[in-house]
Amino acid sequence: MSTRTLIRGGLVVTAAEETHADVLIEDGRIAALAASGSAAAGAWSAERVIDATDRYVIPGGVDAHTHMEFPFGGTFSSDTFETGTRAAAWGGTTTIVDFAVQSKGKALRAGLDAWHAKADGNCAIDYAFHMIVSDVNEATLKQMDGLVEEGVSSFKLFMAYPGVFYSDDGQILRAMQRAGGNGGLIMMHAENGIAIDVLVEQALARGRTDPRYHGEVRKALLEAEATHRAIKLAQVAGAPLYVVHVSAREAVAELTRARDEGLPVFGETCPQYLFLSTDNLAEPDFQGAKYVCSTPLRPQEHQAALWRGLRTNDLQVVSTDHCPFCFSGQKELGRGDFSKIPNGMPGVEHRMDLLHQAVVDGHLSRRRWIEIACATPARMFGLYPKKGTIAPGADADVVIYDPHAEQTISAATHHMNVDYSAYEGKRLTGRVETVLSRGEPVITQREFTGRAGHGAYTARGTCQYLD
Amino acid sequence: MSTRTLIRGGLVVTAAEETHADVLIEDGRIAALAASGSAAAGAWSAERVIDATDRYVIPGGVDAHTHMEFPFGGTFSSDTFETGTRAAAWGGTTTIVDFAVQSKGKALRAGLDAWHAKADGNCAIDYAFHMIVSDVNEATLKQMDGLVEEGVSSFKLFMAYPGVFYSDDGQILRAMQRAGGNGGLIMMHAENGIAIDVLVEQALARGRTDPRYHGEVRKALLEAEATHRAIKLAQVAGAPLYVVHVSAREAVAELTRARDEGLPVFGETCPQYLFLSTDNLAEPDFQGAKYVCSTPLRPQEHQAALWRGLRTNDLQVVSTDHCPFCFSGQKELGRGDFSKIPNGMPGVEHRMDLLHQAVVDGHLSRRRWIEIACATPARMFGLYPKKGTIAPGADADVVIYDPHAEQTISAATHHMNVDYSAYEGKRLTGRVETVLSRGEPVITQREFTGRAGHGAYTARGTCQYLD
Amino acid sequence: MSTRTLIRGGLVVTAAEETHADVLIEDGRIAALAASGSAAAGAWSAERVIDATDRYVIPGGVDAHTHMEFPFGGTFSSDTFETGTRAAAWGGTTTIVDFAVQSKGKALRAGLDAWHAKADGNCAIDYAFHMIVSDVNEATLKQMDGLVEEGVSSFKLFMAYPGVFYSDDGQILRAMQRAGGNGGLIMMHAENGIAIDVLVEQALARGRTDPRYHGEVRKALLEAEATHRAIKLAQVAGAPLYVVHVSAREAVAELTRARDEGLPVFGETCPQYLFLSTDNLAEPDFQGAKYVCSTPLRPQEHQAALWRGLRTNDLQVVSTDHCPFCFSGQKELGRGDFSKIPNGMPGVEHRMDLLHQAVVDGHLSRRRWIEIACATPARMFGLYPKKGTIAPGADADVVIYDPHAEQTISAATHHMNVDYSAYEGKRLTGRVETVLSRGEPVITQREFTGRAGHGAYTARGTCQYLD
Amino acid sequence: MSTRTLIRGGLVVTAAEETHADVLIEDGRIAALAASGSAAAGAWSAERVIDATDRYVIPGGVDAHTHMEFPFGGTFSSDTFETGTRAAAWGGTTTIVDFAVQSKGKALRAGLDAWHAKADGNCAIDYAFHMIVSDVNEATLKQMDGLVEEGVSSFKLFMAYPGVFYSDDGQILRAMQRAGGNGGLIMMHAENGIAIDVLVEQALARGRTDPRYHGEVRKALLEAEATHRAIKLAQVAGAPLYVVHVSAREAVAELTRARDEGLPVFGETCPQYLFLSTDNLAEPDFQGAKYVCSTPLRPQEHQAALWRGLRTNDLQVVSTDHCPFCFSGQKELGRGDFSKIPNGMPGVEHRMDLLHQAVVDGHLSRRRWIEIACATPARMFGLYPKKGTIAPGADADVVIYDPHAEQTISAATHHMNVDYSAYEGKRLTGRVETVLSRGEPVITQREFTGRAGHGAYTARGTCQYLD
Repeated sequence: MSTRTLIRGGLVVTAAEETHADVLIEDGRIAALAASGSAAAGAWSAERVIDATDRYVIPGGVDAHTHMEFPFGGTFSSDTFETGTRAAAWGGTTTIVDFAVQSKGKALRAGLDAWHAKADGNCAIDYAFHMIVSDVNEATLKQMDGLVEEGVSSFKLFMAYPGVFYSDDGQILRAMQRAGGNGGLIMMHAENGIAIDVLVEQALARGRTDPRYHGEVRKALLEAEATHRAIKLAQVAGAPLYVVHVSAREAVAELTRARDEGLPVFGETCPQYLFLSTDNLAEPDFQGAKYVCSTPLRPQEHQAALWRGLRTNDLQVVSTDHCPFCFSGQKELGRGDFSKIPNGMPGVEHRMDLLHQAVVDGHLSRRRWIEIACATPARMFGLYPKKGTIAPGADADVVIYDPHAEQTISAATHHMNVDYSAYEGKRLTGRVETVLSRGEPVITQREFTGRAGHGAYTARGTCQYLD
Repeated sequence: MSTRTLIRGGLVVTAAEETHADVLIEDGRIAALAASGSAAAGAWSAERVIDATDRYVIPGGVDAHTHMEFPFGGTFSSDTFETGTRAAAWGGTTTIVDFAVQSKGKALRAGLDAWHAKADGNCAIDYAFHMIVSDVNEATLKQMDGLVEEGVSSFKLFMAYPGVFYSDDGQILRAMQRAGGNGGLIMMHAENGIAIDVLVEQALARGRTDPRYHGEVRKALLEAEATHRAIKLAQVAGAPLYVVHVSAREAVAELTRARDEGLPVFGETCPQYLFLSTDNLAEPDFQGAKYVCSTPLRPQEHQAALWRGLRTNDLQVVSTDHCPFCFSGQKELGRGDFSKIPNGMPGVEHRMDLLHQAVVDGHLSRRRWIEIACATPARMFGLYPKKGTIAPGADADVVIYDPHAEQTISAATHHMNVDYSAYEGKRLTGRVETVLSRGEPVITQREFTGRAGHGAYTARGTCQYLD
Repeated sequence: MSTRTLIRGGLVVTAAEETHADVLIEDGRIAALAASGSAAAGAWSAERVIDATDRYVIPGGVDAHTHMEFPFGGTFSSDTFETGTRAAAWGGTTTIVDFAVQSKGKALRAGLDAWHAKADGNCAIDYAFHMIVSDVNEATLKQMDGLVEEGVSSFKLFMAYPGVFYSDDGQILRAMQRAGGNGGLIMMHAENGIAIDVLVEQALARGRTDPRYHGEVRKALLEAEATHRAIKLAQVAGAPLYVVHVSAREAVAELTRARDEGLPVFGETCPQYLFLSTDNLAEPDFQGAKYVCSTPLRPQEHQAALWRGLRTNDLQVVSTDHCPFCFSGQKELGRGDFSKIPNGMPGVEHRMDLLHQAVVDGHLSRRRWIEIACATPARMFGLYPKKGTIAPGADADVVIYDPHAEQTISAATHHMNVDYSAYEGKRLTGRVETVLSRGEPVITQREFTGRAGHGAYTARGTCQYLD
Repeated sequence: MSTRTLIRGGLVVTAAEETHADVLIEDGRIAALAASGSAAAGAWSAERVIDATDRYVIPGGVDAHTHMEFPFGGTFSSDTFETGTRAAAWGGTTTIVDFAVQSKGKALRAGLDAWHAKADGNCAIDYAFHMIVSDVNEATLKQMDGLVEEGVSSFKLFMAYPGVFYSDDGQILRAMQRAGGNGGLIMMHAENGIAIDVLVEQALARGRTDPRYHGEVRKALLEAEATHRAIKLAQVAGAPLYVVHVSAREAVAELTRARDEGLPVFGETCPQYLFLSTDNLAEPDFQGAKYVCSTPLRPQEHQAALWRGLRTNDLQVVSTDHCPFCFSGQKELGRGDFSKIPNGMPGVEHRMDLLHQAVVDGHLSRRRWIEIACATPARMFGLYPKKGTIAPGADADVVIYDPHAEQTISAATHHMNVDYSAYEGKRLTGRVETVLSRGEPVITQREFTGRAGHGAYTARGTCQYLD
């Protein structure tokens, strides 16, 4: 029989509403909301009652871009699905969408199965998969149809990393055409990798081996170029497009142009692009390696364009691109050659908090915070209304958030399996207090009360912005 | 003691969510929503139960632009607050924001008092006021502060109608500066009236007296020009801006530019610009007079830009600019001289239906329908969350909407006090069935069950898009 | 009988060509050019031979924007036609187009006659007139036709200076329509003077009386606004437009937009906007008053947009807007109230040299220097091919220019009748050596050899960019 | 000893001037111009006197884009240097710049030598070479330096034709970097050939084999995409860019954007894009094959953007891309498979006349005609002032043009070695009468008086728009 949980007295904040309401949970779902103090609310009782006075009651975060145990540059990202989803839960994220990888020459299915095996039984929170298509050909194109039907409805392609994940424009066009027909959504890593590799080679030949050259060779113009190209190819294919990890203002400008023309083009950015910059990449003693990811961090002046894009909805989603590599032993692979530094940064734990800080700082409204971190990623990737909101019928993925608590980010206290923090020492206002996943307490008053295996694979529908 | 109403089994559609939920109303407010079929919902009972199976349950419409008993060209618009609000209710609108008018040389207060007197005790639904400022000077600027505080937080200025409502750029700048300081929102009729009056005079001198010349002289470029000018003046003043009744694609382009720069500039359009065109103005036998309003109807090819603007959120609100004049005796004042035709069209009754038709036609999603017709106007003019949504604590202004019923618009059957319909014979899919205003049935299964005087004046807060 | 002059051995630089050629002058006109050293050149002889070895041989400058003895703010600009045209000659300018002024309530003719009287018999170089229309009405509109026919084919209107030169948008539209019909060209002072006057009043009320506030209240956005408005009015009128003294990058952007649409819209800037900035306006001890002109000087970062505009031909002409007022006794009228400082700066003498410096600095090519300073103003105002080039049949207005000579600008050495220089101490590379006006030496090896009265009134044709 | 030629009484039209002048030619060069009727002109005598009364005297055309004996699709373009340059002369073109081709795996030098061998001793008019680089690698990059020095200063790359001429973005970037350093100019065929080949394959698979599908698969958006990409790569490389045969309005828009940013980006279009359209490609009975070229012809509505681009200088040059294939036996190779139709059209003979027709039609001014057809291509490719103008010292490449003669284009009367005309039956106003090449009459009163071998190879300097 069912367990009822009642969250009393909080301010329920969703993408759309801010309501003083009590939230009733039955059988792992949101059963009802009632105005706080109303007769209807007064009539409720429950086995578990959570007092949310002076707290926000928000939907659990949806992080649509993570890489657990991800193979890159001869090593693997350091978070397993177990450690990574636990850290996510600590940070108020209750769903991740991770990337299964097709190996070249293998079927999509084989890659997906492998990722299922990694995740199954290990996750503290719910999870779903995108599919990285490394090898677009007749066979894989057909396999895409089946994957959409079974709930893997988005496919990532790379205009970067020639020889590894790279697809050429013909492959991209074919995949977009297929997605245009089967409801899939193409996610694009938009950097001109062919041109960048020339610049990498030239930089190394000139002895420019430090991490900061990673930022210099991966030029903003080459991100903008690829973004424009992906948009035009999608237009030719009659397909929608989702551009991942946008970092350059020139790339935002291309998204703005597309949006002004009414094209179904979407953009994601990440906290590292909003809060960090090439100044970090230039930290001495190889410390810059901690900040090596692609697209790269940009000069600080790009941040204003990203914030504006988030406000004007030219950028719709903030994900983490969580892909941690330890400094010791992993990032160090690139000493003396920045191109050998594994690309990626930890972040899954701090997205909700960093974006709340943006609310405190005046960059975003509270509702927009929830929209870009919960509701839109859920809609974008076919998880709505199960995920991303607090509404009758939704999964009871709920965070009790203390907007006034203060915290300091540190590798010493974080829960990700990585030996450094990109935000070491950064002070934030706001903190996760309690987290429910389908009604179950995963974090309870800042204690981990969840378990590996609670998290369930979640098949997804198609993008909900295309009707 | 309280009356409870329970709406069972409908699809609750708001700007943010589509939920199969039962809605519980207590004391005229939304008390709670529960997932249909949940234990929580099953536990509810109520004095009045409305079966909404196969129906949408939507927030009552908020029409932010009406002119009841409005003086223009020596006559008055033909709907009183009694007839106009009753017609609004028939069409699923539960709140109007009408325009009180300052007479030149008089205080704002005097105008507001006069409008209160017109409305008081006569309205079927709730109402609020904007203030038309005809005479910007030191005294009226100070009076603006007081009006904002008491709930009249928006002020309309005219760049058209020299000698009547017209303000020059200096007056506009001063009013914007004041609004920038006191939280008020400037609403702008953006047409270069000085230039238009030259073209009017020239057209008449050439014997071009038919209604269609109204459309020719009020050029799209002169709407775009004034829109751009208003935006620049607002930027200089550091104030937000709301442009009313946008009809020209070139004007939409100016709003898009402003939005791409991140400026707090908002735009409204009206159903007549979305569904009618200069073809109507050219109807023979002076029938074109029925469609004379300002800004004027535009050639059909402008409609695509308006629809796109509504989708991309360059245009945020659809209001009616309801300002009816009977063809007989009123519109006829302009036979032989189009400039003497009273400017305005009836529309308050059909906005919700016409926009639902846009959903049927694929122009808008359901949620966007509610957003532009209910939620955004409520937020824009400080009525949220009382109005514009269905959420715990909100006023129980609720419409039971039958999305499959068919209807034909006609003056023979409409409820507005005007002798013609601008949409005569137009067939629509979707119809209002029942309307609650603060929990009271105003329309019950397509019977009017409301009363003059139920509708209450509603003081407003300030624009909620400016944090 | 005729006098022949032969210029040997120079590099003839025009807007189109750079040719090592000898130039033969007969009867005040360019008779022929022959390749230096050719048999044809060798066959020539002449009464007067000028050795131009290592010199440029360039067309005399055409300054299309001067104000000699111009009434402003209760005083008159300090150069008479005699002193001003002599200074112009010193600087290599051989034609000015000055502004005749209509007095309110008077006929255009009366103003033109008055300016003829001022100039007649006094000028060292040739001159022509534009007409400032202060009072657009039926009578003046008709008078415009006649003026175009007799050689005054351009009409300046002001969107600034309400109560003085200001025309409202209706007057502007009418004048543009007239010009669209009679071949005239409307020149626009594009600043929103109505809004600026509000800001002036507010600044003074706050005790902001120093010259630098002149720059702050005349905002770049209000120049851009007026520029856009003028463009739209011209588009409605079907007329071309010439925007004078463009200083703000936002205004350049409006010209770029117009040009991208293919509209016949032209822009002029002046050396002061290219070389000076608000830093000068902020000079202490009221020295900033020396730099008070309208449009005002802008922050330095605007200069890049002006240079780019000159290179891309969004800006076509550099004139001086020469309108000098002595610091002592004239500029000083505005001590304690910046709005009383006469608007204007000296400049007629240094335009050719400052623009040559721009060649030296890499902003412009040599041919573009001649184009913006000689050829285009001549074409724009119907003086081509008499003026602005060195080609068979053209007036022999020729400058022998030493590109390597160095000079330092100073009030101590300049020839304008004004007690300060805006460029005091500025070092330049390049200097005028000899100047011919219709074949007559006006400056000979840096001696003034001209005379008042040599300069002739020159009737103009219409703008040559409109075929 | 020298021969003198004197051209009397014509209107000399150059890019910059329209002058009634007599032109004196000595030793194959323009020696002098003198005003018609002047004493200087009267003093001249010559062995050969040409009466140009009522005629234009214009510079010989410079066609910067021809393909004589060009290998494509297993055949060769049908004009040899002998037949092609003779036809060019008939049409008033006195210089061509043809494309030498590097074979894959061979040195640039080898290709250049081969083209020299084809041209040497065969040309009726002067000629120069661009170099097609099929194989960008370390060796060819170095060879580029040498070619620039010896007068082959422009290098064509292809973003189309994978497997044939195609270069990838890394190769393009490297070549641009090299050109940025050595003064070379990269010429780009800007179409996304990788994506186009997918569409070709799909079209053929669907049985869409007619010539009109050539136009459908080579989408305007894919031209625009490649144009944008080339611009961004050039920006990264710090190099100028010249985009050949621009046909799509969306591509023009990219050039406009680049130009608005002040980038050194140039664009060429061709008469076929200005006068023909997809209507021609759709001609029945395989006649559409006559119009197959790449970039393809576009729908008629693109033409307005091209004309506007030519007027606003977003497009700077009109070349022919002359690459004729006979319908019989060559074009027919593609019956049943449009992708096998040799790409190219005849045109070298009619460029000057078609552009004069544009003057007659009001698209261009006379001076602009000469600018885009003579002066700018000469400057762009380092041939100025020898070629492209009539000025002292220039080569005496002169055309006597009758602006009033009428002609009808037909394969029956044209001089190109090809069995059809793309303009069969088109009537034109204006015709070449006499043509001088370095003073020698090549066409005399519409008789061919030239000879194979008169035309000389002309080493070029570097692009003159980059100072």
